[in-house]
Amino acid sequence: MISKEQIKFIRSLHRKKFRDSGQQFIIEGPKMIAEAIQYAPESLLKVFGTEPIQGKLPEHVVFEEIDNKTLGQISTLKHPQKQVAICSYLHNETTRPDFYIALDTIQDPGNLGTILRLASWFGVQHIIASKETADCYNPKVVQASMGAIFNVNIEYIDLKDAFEATDLPIYGSLLKGENIYKKEISKKGILVMGNEGNGISDELLSFITDPIAIPQFGNGESLNVAMATAVLLSEFSRPR
Amino acid sequence: MISKEQIKFIRSLHRKKFRDSGQQFIIEGPKMIAEAIQYAPESLLKVFGTEPIQGKLPEHVVFEEIDNKTLGQISTLKHPQKQVAICSYLHNETTRPDFYIALDTIQDPGNLGTILRLASWFGVQHIIASKETADCYNPKVVQASMGAIFNVNIEYIDLKDAFEATDLPIYGSLLKGENIYKKEISKKGILVMGNEGNGISDELLSFITDPIAIPQFGNGESLNVAMATAVLLSEFSRPR
Repeated sequence: MISKEQIKFIRSLHRKKFRDSGQQFIIEGPKMIAEAIQYAPESLLKVFGTEPIQGKLPEHVVFEEIDNKTLGQISTLKHPQKQVAICSYLHNETTRPDFYIALDTIQDPGNLGTILRLASWFGVQHIIASKETADCYNPKVVQASMGAIFNVNIEYIDLKDAFEATDLPIYGSLLKGENIYKKEISKKGILVMGNEGNGISDELLSFITDPIAIPQFGNGESLNVAMATAVLLSEFSRPR
Repeated sequence: MISKEQIKFIRSLHRKKFRDSGQQFIIEGPKMIAEAIQYAPESLLKVFGTEPIQGKLPEHVVFEEIDNKTLGQISTLKHPQKQVAICSYLHNETTRPDFYIALDTIQDPGNLGTILRLASWFGVQHIIASKETADCYNPKVVQASMGAIFNVNIEYIDLKDAFEATDLPIYGSLLKGENIYKKEISKKGILVMGNEGNGISDELLSFITDPIAIPQFGNGESLNVAMATAVLLSEFSRPR
């Protein structure tokens, strides 16, 4: 049976401070657990659920049955999804591929999760993020990523250092950039997306070699950063 | 001074039943009010705020100062944004342009609001939606639309009737559609986006003349409906 201490421990993982100290985070629901098993089985540690998952758990993973009340206590969701599992922090690859994304202070967890999901769909395996960007192990990020947290690598670093050290073209999404539909773009480079309110920060602007923008066709005031990322990743991925 | 009855009335507009009976809805914050003034001044009826809006209100609009406590009572937001305004339902144009979107049971208010915002950006002025689609006057939709509610026209109808009566090509976003990057597409047509969980409903599938899909480049399990709409509207808008 699950102990009071275990419940307290799982609840502590709702908060970054305790996630960082134990290097563990939680995921919720059968879909997320299936993604963990497929892409990062070694990271999955323990599953608590009102019912077992369908399919096989890796050998080292223990399943513990809990009641609905306990599920409500350990879940971060309004409508808990049968299971909550504990995972260890993921191994962060630091070799960067030829094309990757840089996030400058994306603060909304939903936006970060959506960008992870987009990266995963468009085959972008690596993201570098400023330290002010939302925590990728925040339960809202993890859920919005729909499992992409397990197959996209995210590295929190000083973006300036990364930009100084690279020879890749640095594409920056800017209001006054060149029309992305007309510009010649390479399949190699870094795509920089800026903060929800302030865009790319001043100290990074000078590193942008290729300012790009999505032209406005109607009266729309703006696109949010996740929608802009969708359109730009589509452009970098599609045949041109 | 604002009366208890007025507070009660504004709070009633948080719910569809009361919005429909009075044909009124609320918007919040200086940005939304500015959009209303720009695109639908006649719809703006009354503004309540802890401070006046910057700029001029239309002559027929009354401003009433309220305190922070009252703002909290009439707002739907966790962090209220200075003003709450009452608007009358918008005039729904029923002449459809050559290109428009059809939404088959988009249930999440955030998704509907984001799709309105995307439509506005990409210059799509008209949306038809099944009656099971989220209410466009739901405060979450209105806020997520970032004002697009005022410049995109949304019509709730039986989609089957609309599809039966049209000669336009009907593009349906389907998992097994043709690769959107390779397919010849027209600037005229209807783009059909389906429900978050179930996609386009069976009874509408036979009307789809052109099934389309965004190819998967990585391991990503899926794109959500708003992200897919972003990519598809980009494809219909960009030069090809």
